Amino acid sequence: MEKFEVHVLGCGSALPTTRHNPSAQVVSLREKLYMVDCGEGVQLQLRRSRLRFSRLTHIFITHLHGDHCFGLPGLVSTFALLGRTADMHVYGPADLEKVMRPLLDYFCSGSPFDVIFHTVDTTVSGTVYEDRSVLVEAFPLQHRKPCVGYLFREKPTLPHIKRDMIDFLGIPHFAINDIKSGGGWTTAEGVFYPHERLVTPAEPPRSYAYCSDTRFVPELAETLRGVDLLFHEATFSEADAARAAETMHSTAAQAATMAKLAEVRRLLIGHFSARYEDEGVLLKEAKAVFENTLMAREGLCVSI
Amino acid sequence: MEKFEVHVLGCGSALPTTRHNPSAQVVSLREKLYMVDCGEGVQLQLRRSRLRFSRLTHIFITHLHGDHCFGLPGLVSTFALLGRTADMHVYGPADLEKVMRPLLDYFCSGSPFDVIFHTVDTTVSGTVYEDRSVLVEAFPLQHRKPCVGYLFREKPTLPHIKRDMIDFLGIPHFAINDIKSGGGWTTAEGVFYPHERLVTPAEPPRSYAYCSDTRFVPELAETLRGVDLLFHEATFSEADAARAAETMHSTAAQAATMAKLAEVRRLLIGHFSARYEDEGVLLKEAKAVFENTLMAREGLCVSI
Repeated sequence: MEKFEVHVLGCGSALPTTRHNPSAQVVSLREKLYMVDCGEGVQLQLRRSRLRFSRLTHIFITHLHGDHCFGLPGLVSTFALLGRTADMHVYGPADLEKVMRPLLDYFCSGSPFDVIFHTVDTTVSGTVYEDRSVLVEAFPLQHRKPCVGYLFREKPTLPHIKRDMIDFLGIPHFAINDIKSGGGWTTAEGVFYPHERLVTPAEPPRSYAYCSDTRFVPELAETLRGVDLLFHEATFSEADAARAAETMHSTAAQAATMAKLAEVRRLLIGHFSARYEDEGVLLKEAKAVFENTLMAREGLCVSI
Repeated sequence: MEKFEVHVLGCGSALPTTRHNPSAQVVSLREKLYMVDCGEGVQLQLRRSRLRFSRLTHIFITHLHGDHCFGLPGLVSTFALLGRTADMHVYGPADLEKVMRPLLDYFCSGSPFDVIFHTVDTTVSGTVYEDRSVLVEAFPLQHRKPCVGYLFREKPTLPHIKRDMIDFLGIPHFAINDIKSGGGWTTAEGVFYPHERLVTPAEPPRSYAYCSDTRFVPELAETLRGVDLLFHEATFSEADAARAAETMHSTAAQAATMAKLAEVRRLLIGHFSARYEDEGVLLKEAKAVFENTLMAREGLCVSI
């Protein structure tokens, strides 16, 4: 199965602490890296992750709060210093380019690559990016600023060749791709072997959804239905539910309720408020509602 | 003796590494903190230092390369979230406000305090700030962008009262400040005790100079003469002297030569290039020229 991983670079909330960096993740799918949110210090976290900088070509920003995008100028500057030449594509709400462009123009003039901004409509769901491996959809969240979540849907992969059948029938190498793509095989003796006898089915395409920052929005369950991994912010504990409502954030139990409603496979909680010395309470509250919950931490890599 | 300390928050150069953060220091003098340079991630480093955020009211930026100022928006945002009300004064080259203001206006609108920019002339030496404890002078450095160093000169302190004399003569509490400020005392019997008999002299005022980023400028020795602590960038080793010249940085030996020429008391080297896995070579090269050299590292606190 090809690589599909989520690397947590930062899972704190607006106030960074010595335990947590501001929001940033990297989705590693096949040969590419896709960054989601880009909090301050992300370039250092990316270095710590040992992921290859050059594999990163697309960055998806959820909303324009500083803890989700202040790492962008430093990241772009460093890429310029490293002599990167591939363009960098940045997706986010309309004002992102307006606020970042002057800074990038000033500090990264003469950079050997371009930063290309793509405006994401924060009011409707829709595909914002597609390549041969993945389709990325944005969908509206509900926060104090216009905000979207991102859903990464792996493209279907080809089925696996049954090596023993290939060898037994002496099928030549050049025919393999055709068989993988749906073809059968006729032997020299005229016996036809249909596709299904020559392959085992591909794994079902996998999916990852990222929801931060948002209040609890039950209707989101339809968008998130059945994803393999759901990251949902869990800024507060139940004891601080009033604060969550006031700031348009979610509690750990609300994150878990969303996971349950949407029947996802696994839940990853993060975006922890600085007020919790030990986020164990958040994990406990989430697990009480949805057992298959993981707690984010810097450096965590979740394989999907 | 009152507190006069330099806290190193970051001593890497443009490419941050897992060993070093970009440039930032805090000078702690009596009750106040003064920040010098403000690289990305500085708010997290400041938190690690356990220095009280509210004591920081003045930030001095040397030049407009990202690794010296990208931490400013995050720092200001966090101060706003923490409900700070005291204005923040930021000193730096002319374009600093132009590039930072749009970002601060966008992300920190409604902040309970103001950020007030003060333009520093990068072409001449001069006092840029003064309070009852310190006088801060900026002086031109020579780098690829207009750049200044900063010199912190402690204001003279008052002499120390000789407690035994005060007790012996029964001098009342209300008279102490007058004596500290230069007055004498006449006893009820009419005997006059001059100032000098009642006090021991104050410690000589101390000084700290910060020189980053710059090529080696021998004429700087006059500006830096006799400072108690000199921070001088030492980006490269002698083996990379050509690269130092090309990028307008200094070698460790050049930093030490400056310390020697200026007859400073101690030298602190930093702004290390990412290419050195072990900066011991830089310390060794500096010490060969100027023995009293310290090597910066994140978290280091040097008492002056």
